[in-house]
Amino acid sequence: MNFASDNIVGASGPVLEALVRANDRALPAYGGDEITARVERTFAQVFERDCAVFLVATGTAANALALASAVPPWGRALCHREAHVAEDECGAPEFYTHGGKLVGLPGAGAKISAASVSEYVANLPKNVKQMPAKALSISQATECGLVYDIEEIAALGEVCRAHELAFHLDGARFANAMASLGCTPAEMTWKQGVDIVSFGGTKNGCLMAEAIVVFDGRLAESLAYRRKRAGQLISKGRLIAAQFDGYFADGHWIANARHANHMAKLLADGLADVEGVRLAWLAQANEVFPILPRSVDRALQAAGILYHPWSDLSLPEGQRVGPDEVLVRLVTSFATREEEVQDVLRTARSAALRHAAE
Amino acid sequence: MNFASDNIVGASGPVLEALVRANDRALPAYGGDEITARVERTFAQVFERDCAVFLVATGTAANALALASAVPPWGRALCHREAHVAEDECGAPEFYTHGGKLVGLPGAGAKISAASVSEYVANLPKNVKQMPAKALSISQATECGLVYDIEEIAALGEVCRAHELAFHLDGARFANAMASLGCTPAEMTWKQGVDIVSFGGTKNGCLMAEAIVVFDGRLAESLAYRRKRAGQLISKGRLIAAQFDGYFADGHWIANARHANHMAKLLADGLADVEGVRLAWLAQANEVFPILPRSVDRALQAAGILYHPWSDLSLPEGQRVGPDEVLVRLVTSFATREEEVQDVLRTARSAALRHAAE
Amino acid sequence: MNFASDNIVGASGPVLEALVRANDRALPAYGGDEITARVERTFAQVFERDCAVFLVATGTAANALALASAVPPWGRALCHREAHVAEDECGAPEFYTHGGKLVGLPGAGAKISAASVSEYVANLPKNVKQMPAKALSISQATECGLVYDIEEIAALGEVCRAHELAFHLDGARFANAMASLGCTPAEMTWKQGVDIVSFGGTKNGCLMAEAIVVFDGRLAESLAYRRKRAGQLISKGRLIAAQFDGYFADGHWIANARHANHMAKLLADGLADVEGVRLAWLAQANEVFPILPRSVDRALQAAGILYHPWSDLSLPEGQRVGPDEVLVRLVTSFATREEEVQDVLRTARSAALRHAAE
Amino acid sequence: MNFASDNIVGASGPVLEALVRANDRALPAYGGDEITARVERTFAQVFERDCAVFLVATGTAANALALASAVPPWGRALCHREAHVAEDECGAPEFYTHGGKLVGLPGAGAKISAASVSEYVANLPKNVKQMPAKALSISQATECGLVYDIEEIAALGEVCRAHELAFHLDGARFANAMASLGCTPAEMTWKQGVDIVSFGGTKNGCLMAEAIVVFDGRLAESLAYRRKRAGQLISKGRLIAAQFDGYFADGHWIANARHANHMAKLLADGLADVEGVRLAWLAQANEVFPILPRSVDRALQAAGILYHPWSDLSLPEGQRVGPDEVLVRLVTSFATREEEVQDVLRTARSAALRHAAE
Repeated sequence: MNFASDNIVGASGPVLEALVRANDRALPAYGGDEITARVERTFAQVFERDCAVFLVATGTAANALALASAVPPWGRALCHREAHVAEDECGAPEFYTHGGKLVGLPGAGAKISAASVSEYVANLPKNVKQMPAKALSISQATECGLVYDIEEIAALGEVCRAHELAFHLDGARFANAMASLGCTPAEMTWKQGVDIVSFGGTKNGCLMAEAIVVFDGRLAESLAYRRKRAGQLISKGRLIAAQFDGYFADGHWIANARHANHMAKLLADGLADVEGVRLAWLAQANEVFPILPRSVDRALQAAGILYHPWSDLSLPEGQRVGPDEVLVRLVTSFATREEEVQDVLRTARSAALRHAAE
Repeated sequence: MNFASDNIVGASGPVLEALVRANDRALPAYGGDEITARVERTFAQVFERDCAVFLVATGTAANALALASAVPPWGRALCHREAHVAEDECGAPEFYTHGGKLVGLPGAGAKISAASVSEYVANLPKNVKQMPAKALSISQATECGLVYDIEEIAALGEVCRAHELAFHLDGARFANAMASLGCTPAEMTWKQGVDIVSFGGTKNGCLMAEAIVVFDGRLAESLAYRRKRAGQLISKGRLIAAQFDGYFADGHWIANARHANHMAKLLADGLADVEGVRLAWLAQANEVFPILPRSVDRALQAAGILYHPWSDLSLPEGQRVGPDEVLVRLVTSFATREEEVQDVLRTARSAALRHAAE
Repeated sequence: MNFASDNIVGASGPVLEALVRANDRALPAYGGDEITARVERTFAQVFERDCAVFLVATGTAANALALASAVPPWGRALCHREAHVAEDECGAPEFYTHGGKLVGLPGAGAKISAASVSEYVANLPKNVKQMPAKALSISQATECGLVYDIEEIAALGEVCRAHELAFHLDGARFANAMASLGCTPAEMTWKQGVDIVSFGGTKNGCLMAEAIVVFDGRLAESLAYRRKRAGQLISKGRLIAAQFDGYFADGHWIANARHANHMAKLLADGLADVEGVRLAWLAQANEVFPILPRSVDRALQAAGILYHPWSDLSLPEGQRVGPDEVLVRLVTSFATREEEVQDVLRTARSAALRHAAE
Repeated sequence: MNFASDNIVGASGPVLEALVRANDRALPAYGGDEITARVERTFAQVFERDCAVFLVATGTAANALALASAVPPWGRALCHREAHVAEDECGAPEFYTHGGKLVGLPGAGAKISAASVSEYVANLPKNVKQMPAKALSISQATECGLVYDIEEIAALGEVCRAHELAFHLDGARFANAMASLGCTPAEMTWKQGVDIVSFGGTKNGCLMAEAIVVFDGRLAESLAYRRKRAGQLISKGRLIAAQFDGYFADGHWIANARHANHMAKLLADGLADVEGVRLAWLAQANEVFPILPRSVDRALQAAGILYHPWSDLSLPEGQRVGPDEVLVRLVTSFATREEEVQDVLRTARSAALRHAAE
């Protein structure tokens, strides 16, 4: 059983079918096709407003292009110090911005507070020697599986407006966060001041479908050139567009996200009930971060359950991982089945019982 | 009927089937999967030697990454002045090399001669003020639909060795060129001194499948980092790998290329027989470049046949396009049907007859 | 005797004295000093208008920063194909623009015509695949020692306005060109549509003093950051500022330029009178480009006279260098003495006579 | 009185004289002159070994070029979190490395320990998603005026060797640190494993003279091109070379540094004796960091004494600046006179007395 990530399976049925359906026709290349045009209109409906949409191959490219549209080579972008953009993309933002700087702020659960952004910017000397702050990037859901609520996003939006920071939202798990909040895409983004979104489809049912959604027209100006220049303009543009077509149809994306979140909830609740196990952070989206006794960890691994150890850098103040414990991440997806979750729980419970008995 | 390019249809049957077949399983992400491993072995078999293989999303990325592996920011790469890398990628090589320079050499049919490379390098001052020449990039087939023969590639390979230039081959139409020559991949590349290849699958039956194939190990060292950093490492790596799986199986790729070339030959031969029409360059691969009387051009367009006007910059010495003529490009692919070719020919012939009658 | 370049001697007297005079005082660093402030005001007077001024260490940095202010990484700048920015700066513009492209246009005497710019831009596809044209850069005086006259600059300014190109003037020999035209700095620049100037002092009497002078405020916005980031903001800013102080005082810069131009004129006229010698281009500023019989070349070299061979790529249509000839460049400066010129002429004449006698 | 920095005066006498002396002769440009050659030999003598030397205009350029020679665009360099390279150069290292990342480690007195480097590198995932660590950069003296002793440098050298990090030393105050340690240049650098040095002359008696000194030949390979491309190759190369000529002659540089350090010692000792004043860090080189009662700070400012407030981020564990205190920096130089120091002390003492009396 594989809980290593939400990118370990292919596409969900409706997405794959849409892709197959779009295959045969002759269509203009490089995004000039009608499916791309339709998907752009769909994005506008989904977000309830005009927006510029740039389909790209990966979340890394979406994030890096989005940041490059907002941050000049001599600018800095604020993000959490465990942000994917800062730590897991081999410097893609630095590459695409031509040497911009990412500044990692601390914060429990990989969340940044409006106060910390505000304080950072206020203390930054305004001088030609210091790279000016030009953007804020948050991950929704965060790298610790938490979800910023609407008020938190609004507060960050305020700070961005006050300090003239572009506000970027890394939505690799956009749908999971939205399903968790039970809000609309608009409520989670531009209505709170978000300027540009990396809208991920890949982790939630697509094979490879990411979009940069831009609400601030000025940020969109350079993106067509930047995307082409980065080799991110797919020649058979239907490949990504058709996936989004299937993704958005009949609320499929929401259904996928709800399912994944539900599986995560079952898994989190179940694990929290296991003797000796506690959750590092709430499982608000589709990721579960238990702190496991080493014995339980060993048992799960022995059972062939795949998952990753995780950083404890963003644990809440005062919490820590003990010497006989390990902090790990399990991720659910649209494809996770409840039996798989129950298998994990069963294995964990019996390991905990054995451990108690020893 | 669409002869605008060879990227206007989706995948061929076997490629799509391989993709669908690979969809459901749980597999490690980021190229750690078994399909990617198998495809890497297939490339080694196809090229009859060890090689490093990097799957990427676009030909632009493949070219730019390949050049970046060979050309430092202060280096220059030689190519034809109409080369795709120089003229049609919005500066992707400049982006990926961090400011390297592409130098465009002239040459009929978009071919570069060994002599012109040699002369250029010999005349280049060796001085810190002048960016040193570090690579040669050729397109096979060329931007004018010609194919370098083995001797020409060997001669260029010699020049590269003599001047310590990395030798890059842009194989967006690799299969078409190879089928045209009737040679093996090895004979067309490393056996003649080619160090690194952009191996295109997209135009010959894939949806999106490109690979950088590296024979010179030193060029491979940086590519894993460069690819990740560029957002070109696809998380669900099976997407590209599975396509290549289907592409290489049972010689499918060769069959596709032969068909496309055959269609081009029919089209070229037929057009050359039409009164007033001549070919700008031989149709050695899957592109046909007729110089049409304007009346014929109008008739073809009126019949809804799609194709592009083309540059006359690389016409053979002494040839030119007359005021009542237009030079255009028609491209065939694995999906082109003979009826479509006959339709074009029929339309051209009757337009020519009408014109003669007027 | 050294006619190799105009950067082979140190500073002229008044410049060196100004530098020494400014040495002892305590002054704010990084350009916050009063001498820098005064020099900025002087530039405004010299150019008869408000302008932003950025002092930098080299002409290469001035050119590259100027172009970077105008050309995005995906843009192209037009220049002559023998332009210093394109051929002699090891790709500094590509570095500072983060991968912009320089396009070299042909033109006799290293001059670009408004028509050739216009035609180039008109023919450039307006498409995301092609880097858009964003700037024009001319060298005044040109790399062949010619000077654009006011009408030519005005015509280029027109074309720039029509095509929204930033207009950059590489004024490494600004003073020599201006003295040659007998016009004001304003007449040679912004009054004809020039937006940004690399204003060179080094070749005309300074040790190291270059300035970027910006008339289009939008181009100035990023330059303070770009300059610092490039390590081009000198900490003891007086170093450059004091030199310009001495340079501008009492018309010293004009006097230097007139002297250099006068020496060039004497040298050019004298050489043109030597049997078998002709001038490749008129000596309109402080450079002389004779085409010498090889015997004369050998005699000059034997006499220890230093100068460089030169490219014949921009000879006027129909002209060429014969097999027994060599095209060379001799440069005069504020420090050239008339005796040195007469020595050259004497040596050339007697070599020519000997040759005729053989 | 100006204690704001050590770059607020011009050159010391012998340096200026050397510059004036070198002015008149005709000499080859771009570093081809004999003075540059001689200075390169002097560096080899000073460092007691072969080394490559690159003269540049600023310390920022020296640091950024040095780091660029060692860190690929996808690499990271470790440094102190208050390092000049990370915080005060507007991203010059990011620019010159084409997007490399600087990682700031904590450490009292802006010193990094070998243990913290070792731990950081050990914990860094070795994965294509994470930029690999490629260099360590230390400032000697540090941004808090401390000096790494030989053993500390040796320990860092060990760690660098173990983890294959290039070891860079930012020697903006090289001479002050060396004079403080009473060691030789070799002992402070390559004998402890330092690979590349930014050797500063500007703060210790030059007007503008910085050198990159390279002990690891592989790092030198690209630097000639990188320097030219950055506009850091001065055409009249004697400008920098002659300053170093005067700087090194007769131990002038050591004498300058000793004087500055001595002035700092007097100032530090005197301030430490003032009631209510304490030193944030020892004054081991030419910088003094007192924590002043606000009343004393006000009195000093009222007396026209110039200096800067400073960051308390690197105070020793447990120390802090109180609400009625301010942490400031005063810098001495070769030009500081003992009367100036006594003036500061007198003003501080009487302010402290007045304060005590109130």
